[in-house]
Amino acid sequence: MTAPLFEAIPNFSEGRDAAKISRIVSSVRAVPGVRILDLHTDPDHNRSVLTFAGEEEPVLQAAVALAAACAGEIDLSKQTGVHPRMGSLDVLPFVPLENATMNDAVRLAHHAAQKVCALGFPVFLYEHAATSPHRRNLAEVRRGGYEALAKRIKDPLWHPDYGPNTLDLRLGAVAIGARHFLIAFNVYLDTPDVDVARQVARKVRERDGGLPGLKALGLEVAGRAQVSLNITDIEATPLPVALEAVRESAAVHGARVEWTELVGMMPLEALVQTARHHLALRDFGPEQILEAGL
Amino acid sequence: MTAPLFEAIPNFSEGRDAAKISRIVSSVRAVPGVRILDLHTDPDHNRSVLTFAGEEEPVLQAAVALAAACAGEIDLSKQTGVHPRMGSLDVLPFVPLENATMNDAVRLAHHAAQKVCALGFPVFLYEHAATSPHRRNLAEVRRGGYEALAKRIKDPLWHPDYGPNTLDLRLGAVAIGARHFLIAFNVYLDTPDVDVARQVARKVRERDGGLPGLKALGLEVAGRAQVSLNITDIEATPLPVALEAVRESAAVHGARVEWTELVGMMPLEALVQTARHHLALRDFGPEQILEAGL
Repeated sequence: MTAPLFEAIPNFSEGRDAAKISRIVSSVRAVPGVRILDLHTDPDHNRSVLTFAGEEEPVLQAAVALAAACAGEIDLSKQTGVHPRMGSLDVLPFVPLENATMNDAVRLAHHAAQKVCALGFPVFLYEHAATSPHRRNLAEVRRGGYEALAKRIKDPLWHPDYGPNTLDLRLGAVAIGARHFLIAFNVYLDTPDVDVARQVARKVRERDGGLPGLKALGLEVAGRAQVSLNITDIEATPLPVALEAVRESAAVHGARVEWTELVGMMPLEALVQTARHHLALRDFGPEQILEAGL
Repeated sequence: MTAPLFEAIPNFSEGRDAAKISRIVSSVRAVPGVRILDLHTDPDHNRSVLTFAGEEEPVLQAAVALAAACAGEIDLSKQTGVHPRMGSLDVLPFVPLENATMNDAVRLAHHAAQKVCALGFPVFLYEHAATSPHRRNLAEVRRGGYEALAKRIKDPLWHPDYGPNTLDLRLGAVAIGARHFLIAFNVYLDTPDVDVARQVARKVRERDGGLPGLKALGLEVAGRAQVSLNITDIEATPLPVALEAVRESAAVHGARVEWTELVGMMPLEALVQTARHHLALRDFGPEQILEAGL
């Protein structure tokens, strides 16, 4: 068995200055044993999302190097952008991949928090790494964003898990978490009517009594109704099951799925699930994929 | 880019004597850089199918070692079994995998033929490695099997491509080829009526005007009608398209697909095709599979 692998998906508050972004990303690239999988920069949100992976030690080291680079390059007191944020390094989730458990990812999140707080960041742990239930949900952790933080951090309910109870205005605070791999999957319907997408989203998502581990929003994108899905637990709701639910719900409103898109990546297991589901394969596992044996 | 990879799927005429089979397989295992992916032994057919893979040099070396082991372990003049065969090492196809082309596999087949004929085997090249059109089809190459071989080998149309025009009765002759990866996929219908499976097979297979690169047989297996598919060109007929054709044809006869099974392995591309087809993914490639980037 090969060593456990982890993915980190840091979000940092710079999406415009290419030179700064490049220097921040270089801090990760410089760590041997880390593989950069994706970089998404968004000038409107003035925010970037980096995806990298590797074994525990290199991923930890790269995450800390990234936090230091963000601290050096970004002055949050001067930063503007439409995305809610609370830190220069804003969010840092760790995801267990091959041979790693969620407990492993939680341990990694705590180690990262210890080292990142030493740079001056107050750290809030969230999702599986959360230290109390009211901090599990990232949206709750960063409610009010940077602007509310200086006051909120004094509230005993919202003292940071690691680091100072005071705020360095240049740095802000960071949320560090452990979570499952998340599949971001957009479904375009053959209607421009965004209300249909919204009703479908309400029908399928967990929050409103739908499928477990499924988040959904109805949007209008390029003149088409889009159901934007986040699958946070593919064991509970496999990708093909989520899409089937969207298809069925859309059909009730007389709409059909026109096409879909995967944002970023998905684990091989989602493909295996799709093959089992749609090809009616009774026994089928990743070991039967030729490339997996090589 | 990593070095081109090849798969070899030798069939040899021993499926009963475990000690002999083990020694024959060991000859392959002893070659560094070769990975054994599968071994299927069949006592009724008195035949085994070994699957291994690696870079060109190790695969060549392992194939020749295997031929020598078969020559040493198997006396075809004393062998019995129901499967048509013409050699102790009977068939030896090479398949181009990652970064390898069919031309690369043809070259490898010729190299292997040169070395295997030096062991005393007459060698017939088939499929993409064939030296004339009437030798492309493996079924034609081995028509009449071992029993007809001594006479047939004297016919100028059927002189071997490499090796002697005479037959060592212990060895027999071997067919060495280059071909595409082949997916073996069985579809079980919800009927015991084998005639339905036969009619479906006739409807979908290339030979009778159906889908390109698709072979199909109707069988009865464990009280169920089974359509046994071989997909020899997944670019021409993707796996989900082949299954859809079976579904449609079965429906005409009032039957449905109950379940399916993959025999052996399939390439990742077949899973990618399945995701594109059934998830309506417009742009999706293997680079979006998380494990592929690691």
